[in-house]
Amino acid sequence: MTASAAETVHVELDDRSYDILIGPGLLADAGAHLSALLPGARAAIVTDENVARHHLPTVKQSLEDAGIATTEIVLPAGEPTKRFEMLQEVVYRILDAKLERGDVVVALGGGVIGDLAGFAAAVVRRGMQFVQMPTSLLAQVDSSVGGKTGINAPHGKNLIGAFYQPRLVLADTAALDTLPEREFRAGYAEVVKYGLIDRPDFFGWLEENWPKIKAGGAERIHAIAESCRAKAAVVARDERESGDRALLNLGHTFGHALEAAAKYDPAILIHGEGVAIGMVLAHQFSARMNLASPDDAGRVAAHLETAGLPTNLNAMKAHLHDADTMLDFIRQDKKVTRGALNFILTHGIGQSFIAKDVPASEVRSFLVDKIGA
Amino acid sequence: MTASAAETVHVELDDRSYDILIGPGLLADAGAHLSALLPGARAAIVTDENVARHHLPTVKQSLEDAGIATTEIVLPAGEPTKRFEMLQEVVYRILDAKLERGDVVVALGGGVIGDLAGFAAAVVRRGMQFVQMPTSLLAQVDSSVGGKTGINAPHGKNLIGAFYQPRLVLADTAALDTLPEREFRAGYAEVVKYGLIDRPDFFGWLEENWPKIKAGGAERIHAIAESCRAKAAVVARDERESGDRALLNLGHTFGHALEAAAKYDPAILIHGEGVAIGMVLAHQFSARMNLASPDDAGRVAAHLETAGLPTNLNAMKAHLHDADTMLDFIRQDKKVTRGALNFILTHGIGQSFIAKDVPASEVRSFLVDKIGA
Repeated sequence: MTASAAETVHVELDDRSYDILIGPGLLADAGAHLSALLPGARAAIVTDENVARHHLPTVKQSLEDAGIATTEIVLPAGEPTKRFEMLQEVVYRILDAKLERGDVVVALGGGVIGDLAGFAAAVVRRGMQFVQMPTSLLAQVDSSVGGKTGINAPHGKNLIGAFYQPRLVLADTAALDTLPEREFRAGYAEVVKYGLIDRPDFFGWLEENWPKIKAGGAERIHAIAESCRAKAAVVARDERESGDRALLNLGHTFGHALEAAAKYDPAILIHGEGVAIGMVLAHQFSARMNLASPDDAGRVAAHLETAGLPTNLNAMKAHLHDADTMLDFIRQDKKVTRGALNFILTHGIGQSFIAKDVPASEVRSFLVDKIGA
Repeated sequence: MTASAAETVHVELDDRSYDILIGPGLLADAGAHLSALLPGARAAIVTDENVARHHLPTVKQSLEDAGIATTEIVLPAGEPTKRFEMLQEVVYRILDAKLERGDVVVALGGGVIGDLAGFAAAVVRRGMQFVQMPTSLLAQVDSSVGGKTGINAPHGKNLIGAFYQPRLVLADTAALDTLPEREFRAGYAEVVKYGLIDRPDFFGWLEENWPKIKAGGAERIHAIAESCRAKAAVVARDERESGDRALLNLGHTFGHALEAAAKYDPAILIHGEGVAIGMVLAHQFSARMNLASPDDAGRVAAHLETAGLPTNLNAMKAHLHDADTMLDFIRQDKKVTRGALNFILTHGIGQSFIAKDVPASEVRSFLVDKIGA
């Protein structure tokens, strides 16, 4: 393996199958990849102001060199962009450009841009072509696989959207060097998640290789490819989230509640940080329910701390109110089925499972111990 | 066949298959049908002010008698309701009611309500249950089959939406008696369309039975069931409109352009009227291209006139501007592929086909003869 080796992960979903290319420098080759896949298509590049500064000229030039006519849609950076009014803005701008079903919406950016642009691609003319160019680690290992697109509502995150698969994903691993360090660490929480769900060996490999993944090169490519493979395996079993796919929510039920409690203010908490704390809480709650050893919760917390991630509620204390407020946020999470609380719990590292009908009283008393009544 | 005989049309679409029940009095039985299909589900009934006056108390009572908790979302009647802001309103009201994926959105109304409520059902939590209770003839024979949902944009009709299938359709044929006569006639244009696409015998049957269909009873049920079967057969071959399904657009390319020219003002033209004129124009244009006999265009116009529908551009003259403006409206229609003009043309009654790459110059000179340069 050399530092510049690229990997390809194939996501198998019948007639919606696609490839994820992972390696450095892919943004500069975007035009060639796009014109080979969709000859004659025009493109709308959806991105945010931060990403545009770093990468838009590269991608635009590459597309134009390949003879692809482009329209740019540059949005404000940040989670608030993932809202109804912005969806309307993107949809109308795509229609302004008179793009047709065979034309392509390119999402150039992190998860916010990918989710919003993908949803727009899903609904304009009831479905256009969609290509992802994720520029954050979180987007490369999470939203680039699985076809979940959408926006937030005042009622909660990701409550409005569609399942819509991209035709191609270009994950440029060198682009991650332009990320703020905090974003990179937060994305890494999702990498760790795949080890904790069902790949204990991968978790062990991560414990040893975190510094090299952080530095870049072959280990970074491998960590991203392995994460995409792990997610693709789950999604292939359950594209529309009726069963197994819920495993991907390990750490997310607590995590989303924490994000909601923080009013989605990135100064307080960003998604991956919520997931990091949430994964530790899921392991601690599993231990409390006598499902797993408390040592596993300790090992998870130790590695996440090494990676510079938050692992407990201390930094959040001022925003947590009380256990019942947290329970309300958890109930509003879309993984709730007919009022029963569904959680992803674990029997240990790499042994997660879907727990249905978890008693709200148990969750509440766990939260009371953590936060207070 | 007695006047109260109900018919069932099964729409076969793999795991998205569903039944359309057609007969009088189905709205009063809605609760029993719903609770049998989706035990324990709660319901949001989306309707408009006109339909609510006639049918909401009946449906609400029926659902409550069956133990189904309901939320009502009553919107202004009319095409302008099919817009982005109203989608947001419906989506937020469904979320306000804390409905979950297993709960059901009921569309009680005509095509506007069906398209809007169906789109909302498709995107809330990335997909809730959806049941249609179409109360207009147009909705019963058109939007109740095929899963097209969506809203209009300032750029054109139905440019934003999703393919999303209902779990059940209840077409109450007695509800049509509460329709304004003009609405009933307009819906009938779509019934005629199925004969013209590929069922010449059905067209002949319609020529003979129009008065009985208008009066109600067994012939009305049969005309609706046969229309649903005709559309279901096309949709089963091509759910996502990549090929054959385009046949359903017979009369619609011209029709949509006329609706756009009339600024979607129902005082000037309603959808079925645009389709009636559009079907006559499609037959006339086919005759002009030496594809069909002009006698067929005459026969189509004669029957539509008998049914009280407009069949030429006379009433529209003041709104048509010139041939080039009409061509622009046609180009914005979503059936355009890469700038080439696609039309549904015909070799005669019941012999429609998809014509690709129709020269814009031919369409223009046809329009110049009709409207002026």
